[in-house]
Amino acid sequence: MIMQWANRMVLAILLLLGSTVAAAQDMLWRQVEPDNLVFVELLDGRFVMELNPRFAPKTVEQFRQLVLSRFYDGLSFYRVIDGFVAQGGDGSDLGALSDVPELNAEFAIDWDEEAEIPIPFTAVQKPDMFADETGFIDAFPVARDLEKNQLWLSHCPGMVAMARNDDINSSRTDFYIVIGQAPRYLDRNMNVFARVIDGMEVVQRIQRGPADANGVINEDTDRSRIRTMRLGSEAPEEEQLKVLVMDSDSKPFRKMLEARRERKQKFFHNQPPEVLDICQIPNSGQVTK
Amino acid sequence: MIMQWANRMVLAILLLLGSTVAAAQDMLWRQVEPDNLVFVELLDGRFVMELNPRFAPKTVEQFRQLVLSRFYDGLSFYRVIDGFVAQGGDGSDLGALSDVPELNAEFAIDWDEEAEIPIPFTAVQKPDMFADETGFIDAFPVARDLEKNQLWLSHCPGMVAMARNDDINSSRTDFYIVIGQAPRYLDRNMNVFARVIDGMEVVQRIQRGPADANGVINEDTDRSRIRTMRLGSEAPEEEQLKVLVMDSDSKPFRKMLEARRERKQKFFHNQPPEVLDICQIPNSGQVTK
Repeated sequence: MIMQWANRMVLAILLLLGSTVAAAQDMLWRQVEPDNLVFVELLDGRFVMELNPRFAPKTVEQFRQLVLSRFYDGLSFYRVIDGFVAQGGDGSDLGALSDVPELNAEFAIDWDEEAEIPIPFTAVQKPDMFADETGFIDAFPVARDLEKNQLWLSHCPGMVAMARNDDINSSRTDFYIVIGQAPRYLDRNMNVFARVIDGMEVVQRIQRGPADANGVINEDTDRSRIRTMRLGSEAPEEEQLKVLVMDSDSKPFRKMLEARRERKQKFFHNQPPEVLDICQIPNSGQVTK
Repeated sequence: MIMQWANRMVLAILLLLGSTVAAAQDMLWRQVEPDNLVFVELLDGRFVMELNPRFAPKTVEQFRQLVLSRFYDGLSFYRVIDGFVAQGGDGSDLGALSDVPELNAEFAIDWDEEAEIPIPFTAVQKPDMFADETGFIDAFPVARDLEKNQLWLSHCPGMVAMARNDDINSSRTDFYIVIGQAPRYLDRNMNVFARVIDGMEVVQRIQRGPADANGVINEDTDRSRIRTMRLGSEAPEEEQLKVLVMDSDSKPFRKMLEARRERKQKFFHNQPPEVLDICQIPNSGQVTK
């Protein structure tokens, strides 16, 4: 029986991760700056986001200030559509009742060929269905327009963006987390500014709203609540949790991508096409002491 | 305040579903045959699957027999990887301890041009990153190889397939549900035989296993448990729940696809590319009395 169990474990590993497992052991990791870490405590668990000031500096700065002012503590996810997004905030028309200023659009950045410190882009797929090319920068999934020379954060599961109305400069306080198949048609239309690097299973337990009401949960008491939201840098240095993410600009990461692209395991009776979906590459962080 | 609330609702609808909402109201629906319905009761909720005998007749027949013999009642999801799959069954090396025969591979079907009843294929995307073409058949997401003239069910979120080991004819009893970004590299390598048409939010609450143990949850008591699994046809006719799915071979469905492809709403400042991800099209069923 133990033999069978062990056997099944090996089979399962072969089945689903293959050489990715081996690659992960040799992975190089980057420690996330405490100022870019956000710890979100819900009633039944915690998730962790990494902010991305490279792509959305003003959004990140405003979000940090909102966290520091305890704006989100006690608020809830008031609009949650299974397979799509969980939207949180005060729900007052995306923060219109607050005195928080509207944010200018930060939808894409320019690829500066002559930058002193080059952007550490690791290519994944070219061409891609939604962009000329996809890749990773700082372990965030990005897409690229070769003609316009632009880069943007892509709406993969776990990505976090500010909600807005039709006006592109109307984001204030409310944000959403992608919880389903990547809605990449939203790319370059939203202030994407963070990603969930730990605790996505907690995010997936957030209470859904009714589909026929576009996910809006009318009763405040029915919603999943944010107990606290804190920056990593708020804790005294000796108490700060160390959070690691994969170094996407490293040889082991590229090796992992290749292994996923090639699928050489004998498990694959029909060889899959040698393409990679930028949003289907496991890339969680690690929270340590 | 009520004005603001109503306003936000309208904005939210514009924001995220656009004309899809209008299209859904005119949608044509198909009633699922009770023999193809599976009601799965977990401890904290129910989800519903539709079996697909068109693509996997032998797998479906064996699964029905397993349900009728109460094989799954009391078993659990013993291997659950967030963002990937929830695998359930008895965990004895994929059913090796049972007397259930192994299943032959049912990975794809031929497109029969001369069939008396033509296959009701509704095209979605051509070319697609993982296949020559994608589309819907009976509201199931499918992909197509134009050269080999083959069709297969694609690994979108909510799709259900039998687990196996390296041998392509080794499926027995254990199955998995896709709970994350579509792992389409598994297409044409697994017996995909069903999809979750209702209660995906219940599936998303299934207890995850540790990533460093490939999702395996060692302690049986830590796992999400299947209380009962029943075919729709088991209930007396007058007690049977009516379950509807979208008629993917209809004008309203095609209209919905077009609206999602074109994204004409003024919300879209940067026009998305006119492509559709077959796995990013909301397509849930409706359970009625």
